[in-house]
Amino acid sequence: MKCISSDAFSAQEVCEAYERIKNYIYRTPLEESLYLGKDGRRYFFKLECAQTVKSFKIRGALSKMTTLTQEECRRGVATISSGNHGASVSYGAKLLGIENAVIIVPETTPKAKVDKIRHYGARAMLMGRNYDEAHRLGMDYIHEHGMTYIDAYYDDPKIYGGQGTVALEILQQNPEIDTIVVPIGGGGLCTGIAVYAKSVRPDIRIVGVQTEVCPAMIRAFSDHVFYEEYPVTGETVCDALVGGIGKLSFEMLRDYADDIIEVKESAIRKAVKYMIKDEKYIVEGAGAAAVAAVMDSRERVGGKNIALVVSGGNIDGDLMVQLLNE
Amino acid sequence: MKCISSDAFSAQEVCEAYERIKNYIYRTPLEESLYLGKDGRRYFFKLECAQTVKSFKIRGALSKMTTLTQEECRRGVATISSGNHGASVSYGAKLLGIENAVIIVPETTPKAKVDKIRHYGARAMLMGRNYDEAHRLGMDYIHEHGMTYIDAYYDDPKIYGGQGTVALEILQQNPEIDTIVVPIGGGGLCTGIAVYAKSVRPDIRIVGVQTEVCPAMIRAFSDHVFYEEYPVTGETVCDALVGGIGKLSFEMLRDYADDIIEVKESAIRKAVKYMIKDEKYIVEGAGAAAVAAVMDSRERVGGKNIALVVSGGNIDGDLMVQLLNE
Repeated sequence: MKCISSDAFSAQEVCEAYERIKNYIYRTPLEESLYLGKDGRRYFFKLECAQTVKSFKIRGALSKMTTLTQEECRRGVATISSGNHGASVSYGAKLLGIENAVIIVPETTPKAKVDKIRHYGARAMLMGRNYDEAHRLGMDYIHEHGMTYIDAYYDDPKIYGGQGTVALEILQQNPEIDTIVVPIGGGGLCTGIAVYAKSVRPDIRIVGVQTEVCPAMIRAFSDHVFYEEYPVTGETVCDALVGGIGKLSFEMLRDYADDIIEVKESAIRKAVKYMIKDEKYIVEGAGAAAVAAVMDSRERVGGKNIALVVSGGNIDGDLMVQLLNE
Repeated sequence: MKCISSDAFSAQEVCEAYERIKNYIYRTPLEESLYLGKDGRRYFFKLECAQTVKSFKIRGALSKMTTLTQEECRRGVATISSGNHGASVSYGAKLLGIENAVIIVPETTPKAKVDKIRHYGARAMLMGRNYDEAHRLGMDYIHEHGMTYIDAYYDDPKIYGGQGTVALEILQQNPEIDTIVVPIGGGGLCTGIAVYAKSVRPDIRIVGVQTEVCPAMIRAFSDHVFYEEYPVTGETVCDALVGGIGKLSFEMLRDYADDIIEVKESAIRKAVKYMIKDEKYIVEGAGAAAVAAVMDSRERVGGKNIALVVSGGNIDGDLMVQLLNE
């Protein structure tokens, strides 16, 4: 396996991460779509919705936590997230035998999410009335207790390296893949995938996807501004795709992403319904974004053998039923 | 790995099948239930709904087809099934490079099912106005063309051996499993699992599950009659669990199954909804039967670390939406 290096983050990180995490994660299926293919184009779902904790986030979390020293493990790990990243750190710590693991969430977090974090093994601590307050209080707590903060994605090459292992598996599973379509929130998944894939297959196309209600990366490139925070301008079914972008992603995706497509929320809702009802995979909103891009902009996505990264499957049950009834 | 032998079908068949098929199938997840566990009991889903072709049936089909001679492969394979077995033979033949593969289905088969068979690679041939006629005409066709008939489950130890690999994986993934709960249609899956599991862990409990509208195996044992055919006495969401039983299953499960529980269709419908909406796995009716047994008869199922075999995920989209709205 050839791994090209760069300064900030390189494919080598991905290769090393994979060696550390491969025995803890599922090598998720790359399954051909039953109905999307046409005009000589074939589409393959990389089913991270079937990953442990139902999200690719476990890859990054484990990649980071497998590099900690014994002393760091003893002091413990923590993060601030009520979503897939929080659940991943919780479960990953249990897998690695890190007993002191704390997931900090706002006091307003729904009980179902708190229960899920606890189910996976970590202590859930409720702090602050909203995410900003939780973050401030949480960082104080983490520093005070000498714990290692497991960053959601922003600037940690170890996290990016873990996320990039998705591409490593895709190219092993089907070497004919010429295009990979990836949802972009903070950008960690897309950067990890793009850097790895282009290092072993320089001609591969990487297409990012963002929701219309928070196209932070697209605007960052057109405005030449690093948007650490970005407003959400409407209702969304993609909790995982809102907010600001990572600095490292901002710096790298300019070169590594061939295109970033903005998709409508209505298209994502339709894609979620399609994936559940017709293809029969439970996906969350963000997990269907790449499918929505194909349904709406097939020509722009392009390619002959296209991998669509289905990033996660944690959708609220009531929302699922609502989308299926639309 | 210790494998005890018996005359008709032994755990050795399972071990040998696994060596032949393991590189073609997914080692499906064994994931702990988020919400079923209580009173010191833990439940684990063996997710064959996430298997290739979304069903355990690919295991048996591949197990059989990997034993064919070059000449048999050249003459081709065929089966008569519009369900998971038909799709499995179609896909399995493609994987193995068997070019001449024919799946025979009744002329009344819905287009979606025929399309799916073709999607997986085989020729679909429509014959006869119902399943009985398709079977009669199909067997004539198969004999006439010198093809190998891939039996759905009735009496082929190679098929049973493939299905039993589900138990092999379960016990590798969690050696503490003390109870395995398995849906029973013809009985091939349960027999394969029971024979393997009891050979390596004689104290393990095997609990079968049947739907109230077709409790063929339960009645066969109480009536001491081999029911090669059995009537369906009402509406069912478990296409895969109706009809008669296999001879080999009838002969072996008397000794190998510790209990067989009859569950109500209403309980299965509830279990399907629960699995999709709360646990977030798409399951077909038969795939939720073991879950229904736990929800309705937790004490009778018993055990401390219980594996529930989620046999498949091919549920009709409209039925799925209907069950979610109940």
